[in-house]
Amino acid sequence: MKMIKEHSKKKGLPPGTLLHIGNAQQEKATVVLMEYSQNTFLEKQECHIQDVLKTIPQDTATWYNIEGIHDVELVEAVGRELGLHHLTLEDIVHSGQRAKFEDYDNYLFLVMKMLRYNTEKHQLQSQQISFVLGKGYLLTFQEDNWDVFEIVRERIRKKQGHIKQHGCDYLAYALIDAVVDHYFEILEYFGDTMEDLEKELLSHPTQQTLNKIHIIKRDFVLLRKTIWPLREMLNQLQSDDSELLASETRLHLRDALDHTIQVIDALESNRDLVSGMLEIYLSSVSNKMNSIMKVLTLIATIFIPLTFVTGIFGMNFKTMPKLQTGWMYPWGFWIIIVTLTTCMMAYFKKRNWL
Amino acid sequence: MKMIKEHSKKKGLPPGTLLHIGNAQQEKATVVLMEYSQNTFLEKQECHIQDVLKTIPQDTATWYNIEGIHDVELVEAVGRELGLHHLTLEDIVHSGQRAKFEDYDNYLFLVMKMLRYNTEKHQLQSQQISFVLGKGYLLTFQEDNWDVFEIVRERIRKKQGHIKQHGCDYLAYALIDAVVDHYFEILEYFGDTMEDLEKELLSHPTQQTLNKIHIIKRDFVLLRKTIWPLREMLNQLQSDDSELLASETRLHLRDALDHTIQVIDALESNRDLVSGMLEIYLSSVSNKMNSIMKVLTLIATIFIPLTFVTGIFGMNFKTMPKLQTGWMYPWGFWIIIVTLTTCMMAYFKKRNWL
Amino acid sequence: MKMIKEHSKKKGLPPGTLLHIGNAQQEKATVVLMEYSQNTFLEKQECHIQDVLKTIPQDTATWYNIEGIHDVELVEAVGRELGLHHLTLEDIVHSGQRAKFEDYDNYLFLVMKMLRYNTEKHQLQSQQISFVLGKGYLLTFQEDNWDVFEIVRERIRKKQGHIKQHGCDYLAYALIDAVVDHYFEILEYFGDTMEDLEKELLSHPTQQTLNKIHIIKRDFVLLRKTIWPLREMLNQLQSDDSELLASETRLHLRDALDHTIQVIDALESNRDLVSGMLEIYLSSVSNKMNSIMKVLTLIATIFIPLTFVTGIFGMNFKTMPKLQTGWMYPWGFWIIIVTLTTCMMAYFKKRNWL
Amino acid sequence: MKMIKEHSKKKGLPPGTLLHIGNAQQEKATVVLMEYSQNTFLEKQECHIQDVLKTIPQDTATWYNIEGIHDVELVEAVGRELGLHHLTLEDIVHSGQRAKFEDYDNYLFLVMKMLRYNTEKHQLQSQQISFVLGKGYLLTFQEDNWDVFEIVRERIRKKQGHIKQHGCDYLAYALIDAVVDHYFEILEYFGDTMEDLEKELLSHPTQQTLNKIHIIKRDFVLLRKTIWPLREMLNQLQSDDSELLASETRLHLRDALDHTIQVIDALESNRDLVSGMLEIYLSSVSNKMNSIMKVLTLIATIFIPLTFVTGIFGMNFKTMPKLQTGWMYPWGFWIIIVTLTTCMMAYFKKRNWL
Amino acid sequence: MKMIKEHSKKKGLPPGTLLHIGNAQQEKATVVLMEYSQNTFLEKQECHIQDVLKTIPQDTATWYNIEGIHDVELVEAVGRELGLHHLTLEDIVHSGQRAKFEDYDNYLFLVMKMLRYNTEKHQLQSQQISFVLGKGYLLTFQEDNWDVFEIVRERIRKKQGHIKQHGCDYLAYALIDAVVDHYFEILEYFGDTMEDLEKELLSHPTQQTLNKIHIIKRDFVLLRKTIWPLREMLNQLQSDDSELLASETRLHLRDALDHTIQVIDALESNRDLVSGMLEIYLSSVSNKMNSIMKVLTLIATIFIPLTFVTGIFGMNFKTMPKLQTGWMYPWGFWIIIVTLTTCMMAYFKKRNWL
Repeated sequence: MKMIKEHSKKKGLPPGTLLHIGNAQQEKATVVLMEYSQNTFLEKQECHIQDVLKTIPQDTATWYNIEGIHDVELVEAVGRELGLHHLTLEDIVHSGQRAKFEDYDNYLFLVMKMLRYNTEKHQLQSQQISFVLGKGYLLTFQEDNWDVFEIVRERIRKKQGHIKQHGCDYLAYALIDAVVDHYFEILEYFGDTMEDLEKELLSHPTQQTLNKIHIIKRDFVLLRKTIWPLREMLNQLQSDDSELLASETRLHLRDALDHTIQVIDALESNRDLVSGMLEIYLSSVSNKMNSIMKVLTLIATIFIPLTFVTGIFGMNFKTMPKLQTGWMYPWGFWIIIVTLTTCMMAYFKKRNWL
Repeated sequence: MKMIKEHSKKKGLPPGTLLHIGNAQQEKATVVLMEYSQNTFLEKQECHIQDVLKTIPQDTATWYNIEGIHDVELVEAVGRELGLHHLTLEDIVHSGQRAKFEDYDNYLFLVMKMLRYNTEKHQLQSQQISFVLGKGYLLTFQEDNWDVFEIVRERIRKKQGHIKQHGCDYLAYALIDAVVDHYFEILEYFGDTMEDLEKELLSHPTQQTLNKIHIIKRDFVLLRKTIWPLREMLNQLQSDDSELLASETRLHLRDALDHTIQVIDALESNRDLVSGMLEIYLSSVSNKMNSIMKVLTLIATIFIPLTFVTGIFGMNFKTMPKLQTGWMYPWGFWIIIVTLTTCMMAYFKKRNWL
Repeated sequence: MKMIKEHSKKKGLPPGTLLHIGNAQQEKATVVLMEYSQNTFLEKQECHIQDVLKTIPQDTATWYNIEGIHDVELVEAVGRELGLHHLTLEDIVHSGQRAKFEDYDNYLFLVMKMLRYNTEKHQLQSQQISFVLGKGYLLTFQEDNWDVFEIVRERIRKKQGHIKQHGCDYLAYALIDAVVDHYFEILEYFGDTMEDLEKELLSHPTQQTLNKIHIIKRDFVLLRKTIWPLREMLNQLQSDDSELLASETRLHLRDALDHTIQVIDALESNRDLVSGMLEIYLSSVSNKMNSIMKVLTLIATIFIPLTFVTGIFGMNFKTMPKLQTGWMYPWGFWIIIVTLTTCMMAYFKKRNWL
Repeated sequence: MKMIKEHSKKKGLPPGTLLHIGNAQQEKATVVLMEYSQNTFLEKQECHIQDVLKTIPQDTATWYNIEGIHDVELVEAVGRELGLHHLTLEDIVHSGQRAKFEDYDNYLFLVMKMLRYNTEKHQLQSQQISFVLGKGYLLTFQEDNWDVFEIVRERIRKKQGHIKQHGCDYLAYALIDAVVDHYFEILEYFGDTMEDLEKELLSHPTQQTLNKIHIIKRDFVLLRKTIWPLREMLNQLQSDDSELLASETRLHLRDALDHTIQVIDALESNRDLVSGMLEIYLSSVSNKMNSIMKVLTLIATIFIPLTFVTGIFGMNFKTMPKLQTGWMYPWGFWIIIVTLTTCMMAYFKKRNWL
Repeated sequence: MKMIKEHSKKKGLPPGTLLHIGNAQQEKATVVLMEYSQNTFLEKQECHIQDVLKTIPQDTATWYNIEGIHDVELVEAVGRELGLHHLTLEDIVHSGQRAKFEDYDNYLFLVMKMLRYNTEKHQLQSQQISFVLGKGYLLTFQEDNWDVFEIVRERIRKKQGHIKQHGCDYLAYALIDAVVDHYFEILEYFGDTMEDLEKELLSHPTQQTLNKIHIIKRDFVLLRKTIWPLREMLNQLQSDDSELLASETRLHLRDALDHTIQVIDALESNRDLVSGMLEIYLSSVSNKMNSIMKVLTLIATIFIPLTFVTGIFGMNFKTMPKLQTGWMYPWGFWIIIVTLTTCMMAYFKKRNWL
């Protein structure tokens, strides 16, 4: 529900102060290093960041993945070492960013959201991921300790695909592509859910169905807020004239942009479909009401006049003559009853109610 | 329903790997070659692609139509032979593309969706078609084994129209035009369906009618997603300055663009009309409810008071004097009944309920 | 209803083939010629087109008005004589065009829709009109045998207004202006209809009213589809740098553009008003339902308890003591009845239901 | 209701003919002249227009205010005298113009709508006002005999503000500003009305309330149509490079543009609020229906079963043993009644209906 | 509710007259001065404005904060002293401004709205704040006597953050940032309210819930009107080429712009969510109605036929034979009753109503 994460915590502080805004993390932040070139490969878990940043090798691509942006001191240390602007550092630790791209001449800064659908909690999970792409290195800052990058890591380890032949810019593209691919996965999940929901809707819609539709709509609002800015961001990135991006990478970024537009298209189409489902639900409620009313009206309009007839014959008039004659009861009474019922039925048939 | 085709299958693979995404095909991919110039004509079914690509004649126009993008090896072989970028190849085999145009200097790449309405299954069918337009050749990649190009083939065989006098660029235009013409056909089909549906709506709307409206709305969401990007694509293609496009072809492409805009206009108008039909349906449900309620109220308000009167005369008071007198029953009782009924009727007439 | 006119008929034919698409016409196509300059004037009915096109006088303005685009041979002959592009000819005979303008250097091509409201059939009628403006001549192609140009013809015949002092470009403007003026007339007609409808809506809305609203909405969808593209077309035309347009004519075209924007504004406002009328209708249905329910509830809640009371006194208990005492009936019973009724009434008054 | 003013009257006439379109006026058109400079001031009521236009003093600012555009001869005479384009004259006398600005080199032409709310007739009144700004003079043409310019006149007479130090361009700005200020006044009026309406809506909504909401919505459609084009017009005017506008005036025009945007913002916000009010109304109708139904259901579900019980005891079986025993009536019967009622009540309480 | 603040008061006055428009203030306007540089710091409460403006030190940054724009003389005096344009002064004292930025060469003028949520009155409060940024000084004009700047003041006093090292432009940024940060806080408050409201909505929706939703929607209309123009304003400010803005400040302004876009995104998402809540409310009302109707129908359809049966046996026919036989009552009657009830129940079960 909350579209704004405790931004107000920052209120009392000068713009230049680093303060982590987001879900509090208990664990210590960890740093993973991956260094590779055409022929070499090195992976180091939990390394000390200041040490490894001291000398960044220029002939290999080095990826520093930092998990845990709540460790503000660490982020500050990295910033000092690499000469990052303090606004960059603030954006990294403040986890409410909109996807954006900024070119600070000596490095490129990107921030976006990684999404996954937690099938256990039946919840959409979102995490901020920031990229700092400099000469020969790529820094990534994760908010949480899960990510969608294992595929890319495997590719580096196994020397698969084009990744080894390119530099850090291509690595950044590969990571962005992994994030966007995950958006597809989430939309597939929602597509399946909606298919189930539609079957439910057409067979036996309940208030529960409505709540499910409502939750999907809410998740789509969140998805939209997350994915739309990415389009603009990738567009800017792809047409940026920084020397840090090879022209081959630009071509791949255009491809990632195409994928993002596909995701947006699919999302918008799904939003339309969900609106349609809501209409179906509402009109099925109306139809149900109609059929309930029909039954009530049928029963009432048949039996209320009949009861009136029995009421007449139940009156205590001493002088009601017909009550005395024997043929009246079995014939006269039942003739009245049957005639009345038949007329009513005929009327209902004519009005298409049976 | 599904707006995203199993994109996630690709998740675990490096960006450079070719993997077919789409409906699995059993049959082998086939290649059909058509070679023609002003005077010559050659057609070859099921030829071996690598052989024919070795030497592409420069003085004729050659069209290679490949059915079955699930045959990834074939696509890769073609790509190697003609020097296609691996991103192009990926887009060809991944059948979830948005219509787009890309200029790779030595060739133009186009991808779009072919649609047909399967009247047997009452289903809209969609298939991805990719064009690679190079110097002297046109490659088309179909996902499925049906297409809408028979018309164009006939024209080539019979030397009809302008097609023989022009090169491959004109052929590409002719194929695009055939695809767009098919969109018109589909919209005509929907126009007819909507006309039937509107008659049904005004005479005897049922829940079934609503479901049909809902299905049309859903199909329109899909159509929109398919056709809108084509506009932008044709606009880019027409204003591209590649040498592969003759100026005469550009003029024709502008015409195809006009047709696409006409389709979009008609689609949007139809969407408006469908929304209007939904409103009609909902208000007809309300009106039906109203008329049911009116009947119930009429019957109940007339007979409930009358039953009360019979109730009074049915009480077992020993001292009710009027019950004893003979004239009371035939006159007094019926006078009360008739008076009450008349008043009620007059009231209903005044309120316009009869 | 149909937004697309049998476009599919064309499907089986090469792009270069002329085929009339539209309502079939029985009559032969006729050609009317009007030739005039500052001092001269010549009018010729049913002339032979090829003859008159052979020598187009350069010092006068000549208007050839061709009624009946179903006569494809005639159109083709004209095209050959004047060197028109075959795409132009196709657009002329295919009556499903969107308003558009194309500059073919040696002539300007315009196509738009002429509208009239047939008050007999209570139907909006639409007809395609194409303009070919060349050096010294103006060709107009009408689909049907009615038009809105009589005013302009009269002016030429009577030498009224500025028309005689200007060339064919001004004539084209005058004809476009006549078409746009007719849009105003149609909107006035709808304005009057809506005024009547609103009165009906506020006094005695019926299902019929809803259907009328629905038909107006549908006509507005059609009008929108017809008029919107005209704006863009006139804008392009007015800013075109062709030598065939005098600067004075451009000024007048800007005026026609202003009129078109006025029509669009009025149309959009009317669409808003129609939506508002639908809301009024729906809520008046709800209100009616409410008032019916109120009456039912009033009657039922008053008489059902009363009937219960008569039921009690109608029970056959031998030992019900009160039934035996004489004062019970006239007083006791009626006191209960009156008290109950009064309480109910007071409750209803409090809740504002009476 | 009518969005188009008898435009069709003009249909039969050549574009160059002047014809007044608008509400017919009985009174003769009057001309008021105001001539002022830093030191001089001259006001002349009902002067003869041709005389005063003969010699326009160049060192003073002269304002000719013409009331009554139905006097076509007068407008034509003015046009001849000052060399106005006949399209300008047509726009002046045709009172259905959209706000627009046109630069005719030797003069600037502006047309817009003046609005006032007639509190007696409870009606929004609209009037066209045209400005012709030439070298040393300003012509204004009013449709009706009321205006919102008295403030400006007073300022000229009393030498207040900056107006005397500036030329005719500043005067034009001051008049435009007066018109825009009046828009604010109208929105304030609607703001007050909506506040009253909202109170009514929350306390005792009736069908009348709905009609009032509907009328406000309709007026807003009209306001929107009137005010939106002004934004574009002022934007064009302010950025026009005509020598007739001093740079200081441009600055003031930007201010007037800001005001117009404020009006548009407020109007759009009010439109949103009115939509919200409609939703409130509709759901309050639903709620009322619900509460009526609740009462009906309460009464019916309590008394219908009870009446059934009295029915049982009212049957004429000779052998019903319990009717004979004395203790049955006072205890047995009432125990059944009370138990049933209590159960029902408990059920209703559980469902939150009491 | 009111979207326009008594603008009409100004109607009778020349454009150049200063007139305060807004909530009347009783207190005298106060001026607070803050002068600081890297090393120096001076704060002066309630100083005399004309004195301190006489000599503005050029080597320090000086901030004059004026509380109370109702004191028109004071504002005029300031304007005279600093050479401000009279349009600037008007905008300052007229509290209905839309956020805007204007570059008057020798100073920059900004106006925007400061917001806070008054938790006591449960009301959104809005106040206009104007900035005049000149060489070496920053003037701020507040409408009311509360502000959100205490944080910035503390930072200046405590020499925290970057503020002391930068000039007045950075100070202006810091103040704007404080205003935007407060927007976040307000959205957080609404986020919490909406979370509570959603719980209420799903558990026990009442008319009260609807009113709360309505109030939030109204506040969002106001927020939107306030925050949207800020985006454009900051965009213009950031790309302005005035010398008064250091490039470092521009970078920070881009950051503030990003924040504003985040606020707008969150606001739009929240608007979507509120619309969703309204739909939930309306359909829950429909569902409630349905369940009420179900109960009524159940009771009525079971007991009305049963009562008819008792009515039959209650008739006073002398010759009804079955009434005489002893076995009839206990068995026959109850068999009929039980059979009828069972059938009804079975029917309801089949239709899923139990």
